Amino acid sequence: MKNYRSFKAALISSLALLAFTLPHFSSAAEGMWTLDNLPLAKLQSQYAYKPTGEWVKNVMLGSARLALGCSGSFVSKDGLVMTNHHCASECIEQISTAQKNYMADGFLSKSRETEVQCPAMEVNRLEDIQDVTEQVKKATAGLDGNAYKDAQNAVRAKLTSACVGGDKSATRCDLVDLYHGGRYHIYKYHRYADVRLVWAPERAAAFFGGDPDNFMFPRYNLDMSLVRVYENGKPAQVKNFFPFSKNGAEENELVFVTGHPGSTQRQLTVAQLLSLRDIRLVDGLLRLAELRGVIEQYRTSSPEAARTAEGTLFSVENSYKALYGQLQTLLDPAFMKKKQDEENALRKFITSKPALQSKTGGAWTAIEKAQNKYRALTVRMSNIEGGRALMSEYFYHARDLVRAADEKAKPNAERLPEYSDARLPELEEQILSTAPIYPEFEKVKLVFALTKMREKLGPDDAFVKQILGTASPEQLASDLIKRSTLNDPAVRKALWTGGKDAIAKSDDPFIKLAISIDAQARAIRKQYEQEVESVVQKNTELIAQALFAQSGTGAYPDATFSLRLSYGQVKGWNEAGRKIPAFTDFAGAFARETGAEPFALPSSWHAAKGKLNQAQRLNFVTDNDIIGGNSGSPMINKNGEIVGLIFDGNIHSLGGAFWFDPSINRAVAVHSNGILEALDNIYNAKDLVKEMTER
Amino acid sequence: MKNYRSFKAALISSLALLAFTLPHFSSAAEGMWTLDNLPLAKLQSQYAYKPTGEWVKNVMLGSARLALGCSGSFVSKDGLVMTNHHCASECIEQISTAQKNYMADGFLSKSRETEVQCPAMEVNRLEDIQDVTEQVKKATAGLDGNAYKDAQNAVRAKLTSACVGGDKSATRCDLVDLYHGGRYHIYKYHRYADVRLVWAPERAAAFFGGDPDNFMFPRYNLDMSLVRVYENGKPAQVKNFFPFSKNGAEENELVFVTGHPGSTQRQLTVAQLLSLRDIRLVDGLLRLAELRGVIEQYRTSSPEAARTAEGTLFSVENSYKALYGQLQTLLDPAFMKKKQDEENALRKFITSKPALQSKTGGAWTAIEKAQNKYRALTVRMSNIEGGRALMSEYFYHARDLVRAADEKAKPNAERLPEYSDARLPELEEQILSTAPIYPEFEKVKLVFALTKMREKLGPDDAFVKQILGTASPEQLASDLIKRSTLNDPAVRKALWTGGKDAIAKSDDPFIKLAISIDAQARAIRKQYEQEVESVVQKNTELIAQALFAQSGTGAYPDATFSLRLSYGQVKGWNEAGRKIPAFTDFAGAFARETGAEPFALPSSWHAAKGKLNQAQRLNFVTDNDIIGGNSGSPMINKNGEIVGLIFDGNIHSLGGAFWFDPSINRAVAVHSNGILEALDNIYNAKDLVKEMTER
Repeated sequence: MKNYRSFKAALISSLALLAFTLPHFSSAAEGMWTLDNLPLAKLQSQYAYKPTGEWVKNVMLGSARLALGCSGSFVSKDGLVMTNHHCASECIEQISTAQKNYMADGFLSKSRETEVQCPAMEVNRLEDIQDVTEQVKKATAGLDGNAYKDAQNAVRAKLTSACVGGDKSATRCDLVDLYHGGRYHIYKYHRYADVRLVWAPERAAAFFGGDPDNFMFPRYNLDMSLVRVYENGKPAQVKNFFPFSKNGAEENELVFVTGHPGSTQRQLTVAQLLSLRDIRLVDGLLRLAELRGVIEQYRTSSPEAARTAEGTLFSVENSYKALYGQLQTLLDPAFMKKKQDEENALRKFITSKPALQSKTGGAWTAIEKAQNKYRALTVRMSNIEGGRALMSEYFYHARDLVRAADEKAKPNAERLPEYSDARLPELEEQILSTAPIYPEFEKVKLVFALTKMREKLGPDDAFVKQILGTASPEQLASDLIKRSTLNDPAVRKALWTGGKDAIAKSDDPFIKLAISIDAQARAIRKQYEQEVESVVQKNTELIAQALFAQSGTGAYPDATFSLRLSYGQVKGWNEAGRKIPAFTDFAGAFARETGAEPFALPSSWHAAKGKLNQAQRLNFVTDNDIIGGNSGSPMINKNGEIVGLIFDGNIHSLGGAFWFDPSINRAVAVHSNGILEALDNIYNAKDLVKEMTER
Repeated sequence: MKNYRSFKAALISSLALLAFTLPHFSSAAEGMWTLDNLPLAKLQSQYAYKPTGEWVKNVMLGSARLALGCSGSFVSKDGLVMTNHHCASECIEQISTAQKNYMADGFLSKSRETEVQCPAMEVNRLEDIQDVTEQVKKATAGLDGNAYKDAQNAVRAKLTSACVGGDKSATRCDLVDLYHGGRYHIYKYHRYADVRLVWAPERAAAFFGGDPDNFMFPRYNLDMSLVRVYENGKPAQVKNFFPFSKNGAEENELVFVTGHPGSTQRQLTVAQLLSLRDIRLVDGLLRLAELRGVIEQYRTSSPEAARTAEGTLFSVENSYKALYGQLQTLLDPAFMKKKQDEENALRKFITSKPALQSKTGGAWTAIEKAQNKYRALTVRMSNIEGGRALMSEYFYHARDLVRAADEKAKPNAERLPEYSDARLPELEEQILSTAPIYPEFEKVKLVFALTKMREKLGPDDAFVKQILGTASPEQLASDLIKRSTLNDPAVRKALWTGGKDAIAKSDDPFIKLAISIDAQARAIRKQYEQEVESVVQKNTELIAQALFAQSGTGAYPDATFSLRLSYGQVKGWNEAGRKIPAFTDFAGAFARETGAEPFALPSSWHAAKGKLNQAQRLNFVTDNDIIGGNSGSPMINKNGEIVGLIFDGNIHSLGGAFWFDPSINRAVAVHSNGILEALDNIYNAKDLVKEMTER
């Protein structure tokens, strides 16, 4: 949990802002389409192929979502789920110890009985989509600010709770905002909380080339793992799954990616793009860069430090590179001019329609004013409510325990949405997780967080004085972590089940700290929701409707970590006049090896070199439109067979947050033939190959 | 040397670009004036005060320049020089050991005999200014690209060499570019190479509040040190010096700052501002942020690591905050619009004058095209020629030794300018310096540098492959540093005096590395000078002349680390509706203390608390126009007496690189009364007080 939650907390305020973006009208292979609104006519005309309803249903049920931020797919009737290595790495780290490091050595369960449960992994399968647009709009009609926000929270709690019904442990329901208030859907998922690791290669094979090659191509990565979902202690039996293709993907073949892209911002106003650039990208990157330096140096202090910090360092480096790519797009005057021109054209269109003008004409100014509020509030919001000031597993657990105790005592509809009934099972699983917490590394992060808090808010700020008192960040972090027992799951369980009484009696310093700042944190959040979030949301909805009026309804909505299908073809691209071929092979991996990390292949590959078909395809690129969150997505052919496994985008795909350029934006995948070749001839996992190729 | 040279190398390409900026026309207290062109009429009308020629001459001869990037002043007839603690901290660190840490404990020489020589400090005093504009212009007339650059280097070598004459060890001459080619002057300095530390307080007193308070106000810093210049083993006798004022500065008093502001960019074109923003600020800050994280974490590994990394960390944090402030200015759409409007107005003026238009009309486009070249070349330029890829004292020494051997064999006029005769004495002093080099810390920096090189150029780049081979950054850095003996001054001396033969025979791995990349490094520099530097320089000169035509000649030139005088008044400012008073006092320092670093005062202050006049002024602010490089500048009154010591600017002064806002831009100084109070009652330095108050 530590990686995701750290960054979840760090990004909370920005994401809240970014979610309110606008629908986009597509060209070429562009588009992350909801399954209930596929561009069937376009597919028919461009590729002479039209998916049937049955095909689409199978795609929905064969797709998997990893609750903490990735995609996956069912690849056998016995609940085998394929995803990326980097999507399972948290689990792989958590089940590793100083003595047995599965990240370094890889993992292969000898039989189903020895598959190892992942402490914090949850797999969801989308089962039903229900349109609730009218109910949501009715609930918020005529409201503003906090009243708008409260009404929306209440209707969300009511609808998701009704959807979950009595089956809390096996069902999860989300209210999904599409087209920025244009449509609201309830997505009902089957929830698998018992997920076990089946196979993972060595990190050296999964992430060959490491950070230097991340988001690059050509690539040679076996970035894959297999987990299995269990029900009642047995492998779950599933009807819909994607078997492996016999031949894999060929050049120019039409392929589909089904998965859960996290978020795109393709229709932000120029004012939003500027605050995104300055706050989330510039300030966010500077924080990440410094944290990266801290962790890089920390990991040189001992092998155990290297092991325990590895996952966080990966997250930091991955986010850094992704955000850096986004920033380059927003620093490009040509891109900003294009966005300004689009905005001017829409505003001009609106001016020509008096009714639309009187309703929507003020939306841009309202959003711009809200951006100024955002700029003024963001440091306090992210540090105090976002928890950035106290970044550590200890504090995040303490915050959740303290708040859950308060919130659970309220009616469902009045709670903060993250503590609504529909969300509690996932939260409980996180809080009770047996994943280890490493005090030494937590201290490193906490010292950093406290130091940055003081830097950003200033040493004379009342909140900073309240937190630090007369202590230095080092002194405070040492003291808190030495005295806390929240790293013990049993202690957390007692506080979780004990509720408000147990919380009030706790002497744990993080619990006391979380209590002492809770009122301030809630207040800044209320202010933020009143002055920024609700204003942006309402006005973005107005702009979205104007855009529909201007350009019709053949649009796909911005990504919101809900299930999407993208289509495209296997093809390379031209880079500075040089043709980048679509495929790489095993021979290329050996040719690229230097022997020094991250360009060292594991010994298993060297041992297998003789029997390996080195001409076998390993990685490839397509022009599918994907974004972060698509990691682990299956790539399938027209027959619903696996031909690849998405694990990355090329460097040009990073600007894909803001626009799609079909000439250079590429998705990067492991080739299905490469997967079978490796499982068979390197990892000797014949049973898995058999299971994955059975129909 | 380690701090400055590291950053000198890191910034070399950017600085080369930035130096070519334009003259600026002043208002209010704005302006960093050359001493031969003071705004006498304005002073007379605004303050009813007109400095005499004698006053100005005394100011020139009482001012000091610290060759590695600071200012100072002569404060007694016996060669006592006052500067900041942070300007002498390199020396203080270099004479410290694991056993005796003068940064922590402070230093006070009991008598003149025990004053300790600084291994790498040089003090310059400006003695003469000579106008050589015609000679320089004649030498470069009609030339372009490398021919232009070579001619300029040759005339610079000729003029500076003629100025130095036979007295190489005691004279230094620089060709100073003012008004961007509008005027060229030779500045002749008396050179003091024997500089000894006299007194320095504890870092805790000098830098109370540390990085959190840096560039902030109110402040409570005794950021001061005293050194003494020696000649022939005896304290140098000087005729011109600034005695301490009896009363110090009062609110609204007219005060002058004399010193060496490093560089301002107040008239860059918009295209230059954008590349400055993206390359030097965004990319530069991201690198600094990560390096900061590395060093912050490294210093927690042992007390000795903390001690040896302290100075570098200060430099990094200081640069980081300064550049971050600059970036905020360049991200401000209102500021950029102002700049665009100014540029449009000048271009419109030019269009109205056919002769000017035909000569200058293409200048902006030429500069913009050169910026695109700059963007394309900058990573290779900074890594390969700038030495960023190999950031370490070992490589910088190796580069200088290898190049000096080559260059010294050429006629003076054909050398790279940094190896011309006029510059060799300073270079020799740096290379033969006995300042310690700490292999462990150098390795940390080198691993970082190699990793970033690979990240920025890519693992498949030919230069990266040449440097790393099959090694990881860790392996290569360890190996190079283990085998090198360049940390031994005697080894460097042998290579320096042995010339090309000794270099060719050397087995030192850094020497071999420097040789192996020298041709590539020189080639990229040539390309950069041809396609970027000379184009920008020539066209900036054209724009400068157009600006003179538009606005007359009452201008001050952008800062170029040459002696300048600024005037202003003691006054606070309004911050978000709150009045910030001009003065702080000793009582405020004690009130602000928490006891934890960096808010802990040293024990000497606690011991003296009883006898200290706590109402005595400690720090204060004025609206003088200063910038980095003014650190250590004396602040004097109309009588030429010390009333303060510049050590910082407020946060609003950081945008001063690009414009001057008299309402909020403030210089921050130690008050002269606070200095005397501390020397007398905390440090018991009665002899120094006597020496500094004598006339």
